[in-house]
Amino acid sequence: MNRQQLIEQIKQKRSFLCVGLDPDLGKMPAGLGGDLLAFNKAIIDATAQHAIAFKPNLAFYEVQGVQGYKAFEDTVAYIRANYPDVMIIADAKRGDIGNTSKMYAKSFFETLNVDALTVAPYMGEDSVTPFLGYPDKWVVLLALTSNKGSQDFQHIAAADGGDELFETVIKKSQQWGDASNMMYVTGATQAPLFTRIRQLAPSHFLLVPGVGAQGGSLEQVAKYGFNSDCGLIVNSSRGIIHASSGDDFAQVAGQKAADLHAQMQKLLADYGIFS
Amino acid sequence: MNRQQLIEQIKQKRSFLCVGLDPDLGKMPAGLGGDLLAFNKAIIDATAQHAIAFKPNLAFYEVQGVQGYKAFEDTVAYIRANYPDVMIIADAKRGDIGNTSKMYAKSFFETLNVDALTVAPYMGEDSVTPFLGYPDKWVVLLALTSNKGSQDFQHIAAADGGDELFETVIKKSQQWGDASNMMYVTGATQAPLFTRIRQLAPSHFLLVPGVGAQGGSLEQVAKYGFNSDCGLIVNSSRGIIHASSGDDFAQVAGQKAADLHAQMQKLLADYGIFS
Repeated sequence: MNRQQLIEQIKQKRSFLCVGLDPDLGKMPAGLGGDLLAFNKAIIDATAQHAIAFKPNLAFYEVQGVQGYKAFEDTVAYIRANYPDVMIIADAKRGDIGNTSKMYAKSFFETLNVDALTVAPYMGEDSVTPFLGYPDKWVVLLALTSNKGSQDFQHIAAADGGDELFETVIKKSQQWGDASNMMYVTGATQAPLFTRIRQLAPSHFLLVPGVGAQGGSLEQVAKYGFNSDCGLIVNSSRGIIHASSGDDFAQVAGQKAADLHAQMQKLLADYGIFS
Repeated sequence: MNRQQLIEQIKQKRSFLCVGLDPDLGKMPAGLGGDLLAFNKAIIDATAQHAIAFKPNLAFYEVQGVQGYKAFEDTVAYIRANYPDVMIIADAKRGDIGNTSKMYAKSFFETLNVDALTVAPYMGEDSVTPFLGYPDKWVVLLALTSNKGSQDFQHIAAADGGDELFETVIKKSQQWGDASNMMYVTGATQAPLFTRIRQLAPSHFLLVPGVGAQGGSLEQVAKYGFNSDCGLIVNSSRGIIHASSGDDFAQVAGQKAADLHAQMQKLLADYGIFS
């Protein structure tokens, strides 16, 4: 999916919602017997009209071993077959030396054929660039994450120039890719810092986790993060898919996604985006 | 595997060799028909007497999808069944928000039951600590990697105190774990910096990639990295497993591992370790 197609989808649906497919066995209705794929299909069908992206998180599949990995592959195939316009972001936070990142790129962009992959920046340029050679595929680079541990390293100011680490990541990575093949992960819990992020990366899409269970505010994210193309993909996982652990899980998930969709429609209107 | 068992194994074999199981389809003998497990079994059998650890790199399995993931699981099971004393390090460079890292910890330390996992530090404390709650399991935290991109962020000096990022990672992470459950990845290509690393982490084991194909020197690594318990696990992947792409691949791999083993025996003797 290229940038134009992504923007077009946001414009048509008037949504910038990403539904995180992180199915936790302990929170799934007992009746499903731990069937990740059946759970995901129900969630996908209930939320696809509100979502412009789905983001399965590999950890929640690998925990079931081969069977889980198969459920992940089948989930990707199900979205592709039934909702071909919706972006698929594999949340795997990969990143390794060049020859290994090249293998990961092959895994995700050829074998699985997802649209985007989250990548960790610690190992630098040659750990990221192998993912950038694929047309219409995206690197979603960790910049400022939503968790408490983001305080440990991401805010360290450099002796030379004073940039905090997340700022250096955003600056430096723009030598490797651009707004057509790279996005940044920026946590909703850090929304006031989006002003600074927008100075550094005015055109890039930001993938924003942390709304919902982690406490981030959608209004704040929009206020500080919108650009004229929307420029935001806001993720909610637990707040949607595990809002109910009863047999009505899909219906409740659909309602939670619809609520966020309505808020997003209003925010896009309030800020005059695509008007 | 606990620290005492690891040291005992190094002492008995007089080796600190880790064989990286990164099977590249393009470099495997055609006769194997791309069978990762058959390739690995032959490599494992040929090198186990020289190695104290095996390190499969997930990228090289995921690239084959479910079938590859199964080969990874089966490889782990094969090592466990046939060489129970040899450490298994899953090279996956995971790291995510707390609830996700908890799932990865379950995947690798319960479902797969490997001994150690490489983890990326960018997301800080709550991305690492979920892996530290397992007795006799290890986090191998990226500190100073062997690749060119290590220059991009790992050497940034902090305005407050002047520590480079890799130094801050080593210092801060010692508030989360200790030398009994944490090691650091420190690339062989940066051996002179091991002096500094040993000031910060005198007792920790260092997992050292980059000898061989990447150009690091075993002598330099020993000179700057040894401590009185050896304290080093030196990995070679391509230099062993793909030394021949002919039908003699396992035999040649065994020879390459034996060569490194002999060098390691000599270095342990030269430095009077375990004497």
